[in-house]
Amino acid sequence: MDGYSPIILTDDDRFYILDQRKLPAVVEYIEANNINSVCKAIKDMAVRGAPLIGITAAIGLYFGIKDSNSLDELNAQFHKAYECLSKTRPTAVNLFWALDKMKRVKNEKELILPLEKLIKKIRATAISIWEEQKKVDELIGEAGSEFLKGKKRILTHCNTGTLATGGIGTALGIIKTMYKKGELELVYVDETRPYLQGMRLTAFELKQEGIDYKIITDNSCGMLFKKKLVDAVVVGADRIAKNGDTANKIGTYCLASMCKKHGITFVVAAPESTIDRTIKSMDEIPVEERNKEEVLKIAGRYLTPENSDALYYSFDLTEAELISAIITERGVFKHPYNF
Amino acid sequence: MDGYSPIILTDDDRFYILDQRKLPAVVEYIEANNINSVCKAIKDMAVRGAPLIGITAAIGLYFGIKDSNSLDELNAQFHKAYECLSKTRPTAVNLFWALDKMKRVKNEKELILPLEKLIKKIRATAISIWEEQKKVDELIGEAGSEFLKGKKRILTHCNTGTLATGGIGTALGIIKTMYKKGELELVYVDETRPYLQGMRLTAFELKQEGIDYKIITDNSCGMLFKKKLVDAVVVGADRIAKNGDTANKIGTYCLASMCKKHGITFVVAAPESTIDRTIKSMDEIPVEERNKEEVLKIAGRYLTPENSDALYYSFDLTEAELISAIITERGVFKHPYNF
Repeated sequence: MDGYSPIILTDDDRFYILDQRKLPAVVEYIEANNINSVCKAIKDMAVRGAPLIGITAAIGLYFGIKDSNSLDELNAQFHKAYECLSKTRPTAVNLFWALDKMKRVKNEKELILPLEKLIKKIRATAISIWEEQKKVDELIGEAGSEFLKGKKRILTHCNTGTLATGGIGTALGIIKTMYKKGELELVYVDETRPYLQGMRLTAFELKQEGIDYKIITDNSCGMLFKKKLVDAVVVGADRIAKNGDTANKIGTYCLASMCKKHGITFVVAAPESTIDRTIKSMDEIPVEERNKEEVLKIAGRYLTPENSDALYYSFDLTEAELISAIITERGVFKHPYNF
Repeated sequence: MDGYSPIILTDDDRFYILDQRKLPAVVEYIEANNINSVCKAIKDMAVRGAPLIGITAAIGLYFGIKDSNSLDELNAQFHKAYECLSKTRPTAVNLFWALDKMKRVKNEKELILPLEKLIKKIRATAISIWEEQKKVDELIGEAGSEFLKGKKRILTHCNTGTLATGGIGTALGIIKTMYKKGELELVYVDETRPYLQGMRLTAFELKQEGIDYKIITDNSCGMLFKKKLVDAVVVGADRIAKNGDTANKIGTYCLASMCKKHGITFVVAAPESTIDRTIKSMDEIPVEERNKEEVLKIAGRYLTPENSDALYYSFDLTEAELISAIITERGVFKHPYNF
């Protein structure tokens, strides 16, 4: 991803968010120097990907409080920003994880540090969340590429790369690491309707890395498996329950089920922060139902009769039994999971 | 489908083919009064749907021979037209069935009828194939709606309606019949990438009939099944082997597999002419790999990085064990199938 960072925070506090809705045709940044712009960018999916949403939200929190003139004002603004950000995307647990980490640091330091230093500490904490993610991605890439040794043709869904994490990526980070080790032959990229993260974003990253890929429609996996064209499937996660049940981009559940049927390795790659130990199983994971317009409109055009109705679940739920391994920065976990 | 017939053959031999690639936004007919135009319309998918391809090809054959001045010329033109048409779409068996029926009639009558009457007989045979299809659709609709009694929320894939058969349709004909009997609540319409037959064509027909529908992305079925929103899935077929194995639009195999997993009724509806008794199982069904541009381009725009590669199987293969029933004009067949 030389040249295109999905977010940029300058030393003089300008915050730029790459508008991923316009990729790959247009590379354009949104300037988001206040809390409302950041909330809007997350909600409208200008920025997406569970870890990157967390990082962006943390930076957003900083923008929410950075001009405070007293601790009381800072706390009021913090609370306001926290509320606004936590309502943007309900499924991604990293968002809440990042917000809570920011809150913890703020709470710990607010009575110790003078206001100016407290604000600086909050800024540094947001940046450290990003830096940690980069390290996490490297560890996942290493563990995942070891686990998948010998599997050369990988299918992936959605985008789990730099554009999703700010690092090398999770599932896509594994793929990039395999490529660097000379252990990758081809990537099948699910186009990932309706937002087309695969066709637009994953293809964009793979192209930049010089990795061979073929784009397929999401409904193709069964046929590819039947023709023995795929050795393993690697995806990310938006939330993982204590028992390993996983919420991820719509389509993941079908992919996992078809892998089970065909005896194909199905791997989930995600940072620890994706694991929500407060929920036992997927029964407790809320699933976001998004605006039906996002299904009805493709490339800015309606291809349906006027006033058509639609139903759009943005995520689905995959039971732990279908997952061959969950790979985090702590290593490779196998079923039965007990996080 | 009041007002919009997918093909029109006038008394003075003008042949119009509704350009389904432009629906639902534009209703436009292609004038196809010669064999090359008909072949092109089938190959480029201006007209599609297995039974309608057969009917259109039969009419195309007639246009291939109608100006012949001798029996020798007719036979030469017939052969040429037959070759051209049989190369348009390799998976749809109805195409070959219709062409062979035309050939049989031609062979039976060529030494009995004078040239002018022979040409008229060939024309009448093409029309009779269309008329028969209409009757077949009614019978399938009746049998299917009986079989599915009590199942009110139906999911369907691709387009299997008037735009696919020239009658009320096969799978969609069942849905229309259920609606007429007051036994239908809602249709979930798979958008059906890449050609979007569901989002564009099935929605267009349902809208005209006043039937409630919701469009979903093809990768949503698992989540809908998990939420118990669907009572049965009904699809068409492009070719059915002697043992019931079925080739149909890409995505069907995943749908059928997910139905099996969730205990949801999965029905294939198709005319007898779709059954190819010369092949024992799906191992012998050739599957069409189409131009990758059809995946890469959506609504006329490329949404991928330049020079992206793609893989596009137009159909997939579903084993008979996954199919709860196959419904033809002869009634309801259940596994194990032995056609």
